[in-house]
Amino acid sequence: MQLSFITRTLRLRNAFTLSRGSIREKQSLVVELTHEGLVGRGEAAPIARYGETPESCLGALERMREAMPESPAAYVPLLRTLKRVAPNEHAARAAMDAAIMDWLGKSLGAPLYRLWGLDPAAMPPTSMTIAIDAPDRVRERAREASGFHVLKLKLGGAEDHAMVKAIREVTDRPIRGDANEGFPDRETALREIEWLAGHNVELVEQPLSAARLEDMVWLKERSPLPIIADEAFIRSKDLSVLAQAYHGINVKLVKCGGTLAAREAITLARSHGLEVMLGCTIESSLGIAAAAHLAPLADYVDLDGNLLIANDPYIGHPVVDGRIALRDAPGLGIA
Amino acid sequence: MQLSFITRTLRLRNAFTLSRGSIREKQSLVVELTHEGLVGRGEAAPIARYGETPESCLGALERMREAMPESPAAYVPLLRTLKRVAPNEHAARAAMDAAIMDWLGKSLGAPLYRLWGLDPAAMPPTSMTIAIDAPDRVRERAREASGFHVLKLKLGGAEDHAMVKAIREVTDRPIRGDANEGFPDRETALREIEWLAGHNVELVEQPLSAARLEDMVWLKERSPLPIIADEAFIRSKDLSVLAQAYHGINVKLVKCGGTLAAREAITLARSHGLEVMLGCTIESSLGIAAAAHLAPLADYVDLDGNLLIANDPYIGHPVVDGRIALRDAPGLGIA
Repeated sequence: MQLSFITRTLRLRNAFTLSRGSIREKQSLVVELTHEGLVGRGEAAPIARYGETPESCLGALERMREAMPESPAAYVPLLRTLKRVAPNEHAARAAMDAAIMDWLGKSLGAPLYRLWGLDPAAMPPTSMTIAIDAPDRVRERAREASGFHVLKLKLGGAEDHAMVKAIREVTDRPIRGDANEGFPDRETALREIEWLAGHNVELVEQPLSAARLEDMVWLKERSPLPIIADEAFIRSKDLSVLAQAYHGINVKLVKCGGTLAAREAITLARSHGLEVMLGCTIESSLGIAAAAHLAPLADYVDLDGNLLIANDPYIGHPVVDGRIALRDAPGLGIA
Repeated sequence: MQLSFITRTLRLRNAFTLSRGSIREKQSLVVELTHEGLVGRGEAAPIARYGETPESCLGALERMREAMPESPAAYVPLLRTLKRVAPNEHAARAAMDAAIMDWLGKSLGAPLYRLWGLDPAAMPPTSMTIAIDAPDRVRERAREASGFHVLKLKLGGAEDHAMVKAIREVTDRPIRGDANEGFPDRETALREIEWLAGHNVELVEQPLSAARLEDMVWLKERSPLPIIADEAFIRSKDLSVLAQAYHGINVKLVKCGGTLAAREAITLARSHGLEVMLGCTIESSLGIAAAAHLAPLADYVDLDGNLLIANDPYIGHPVVDGRIALRDAPGLGIA
């Protein structure tokens, strides 16, 4: 088995502004695993919010290389080993998981959704994200996103109402609000959520800091909209606590550490009665594909990271009528 | 897709006596699912303890037949549908699950352990069961089981000490004790477990009635041996409660309703810090094979139901050096 790692800079189509800052590009690492003449690929998009950098990610991949067995076929014990090697480098583990699963799918000649017994026709619509921006530019983004059934709007600034009203000038489709921990306190959060509920916003992600669990219990009791944990959910062992404070969790492969951990997180979330959103970060069509194969398991799909970049190195699965249309091709199905 | 159901009588090599009664034969149903020229098979071995009969099982299979889609490939939503159709017929659902997975493995040309990413070389030893009997016959059974690294002894009667001593005359290998709810009260159970711990017994299954949860919390705090829930564990939603009262659970496909539900139960059990035994009932090599493909996930394997019957209709996976040796053949790998 051979492993090689490629570092790339993904350039964003538009500056991407959240409540905690703005970016124009993002570093991404790609794992290529070659075994028995087949190449499996996976992407790591390290997230600064969780203490990861491209350098720490590459360091983790190099440590994992040393721990690889002769064959990647027995992926359950293998991924357990890789977790011991790099317990806190979730993006790196997600890339290895995807490369292994892509290789396995190719070796069996089947797309991953088929190995996992999922129905690609049961794909929920994906949302298209609009970052924080001036209202007229938000209006323009909403117009461009006319092919999507749901929009996702980044919130948590002074212009929240103006942005929502700008979108409502061009469409009445549902919006998902994502505050990225941006509301200052629970009272403000409740007031904002109540206002949003009156403007066909269907849910709100992470209104308060992930650390403010007691305020979230208070807020969950009063919120007219479902509240989804994103920054507050990284590890599955937190789920019994999170279930008191949120209605659902945003499962991202770069947080869980890959598709196997994500499938386990979804099983555990369901056992706690939590709703499941399948989300992403800024990543290419390669990273998005791994999550897309799991998406029939989710209530809400938010897999648009590849659509926000200008230099996608891969040809992924197309969005057809607002839904990712998984091709019947082996492994991740990426060209 | 075509489904046919076959009813068979499995005859036991020796009368099989537990704390709650004795049997000489058992009814088993086999599902044959034919689709695209491939046949997937699965076995249902209904358990009277859980209110199932061969008649109720066959009735459930007939109801499931009505709910089948055109293709069994998307097994996750399909098994969810079948659970709604027959929520309390676990053995029938296990048979459908196995037939679907056998078909899928054959359609992909791969054994199930490979689809699930497990390593057949990581198989724990399986125990060989010795039922309640006269001490000299127990001694004879222990002698016959010299190829196994672990014995399982049915307990809960007046002859428990005599049976253990009879085994100890011919071997010092570890024994797993299974009381099948047979000890009358917690004090007796604790006294017996302490005695067993002094005779190289490594764990005890279900010492008290499944209903006596508070007594089990008391017993868990004091027991020198791990205690495994069998009759007390059917549904995964009970696990947070069971984790207070037991050290582990016995996962059987006929209780969970098949391999997918068993994999989910194992994920949930691990999240609660519970140990996992993979067990069986009296069933042929077909039913045993479905569990055997999962067995690398377990701490303890107890898959010997097929070895206790005289008229096994199938050729299963052999036991080599006390472990089930999974063949590299598609699906369940059964001839």
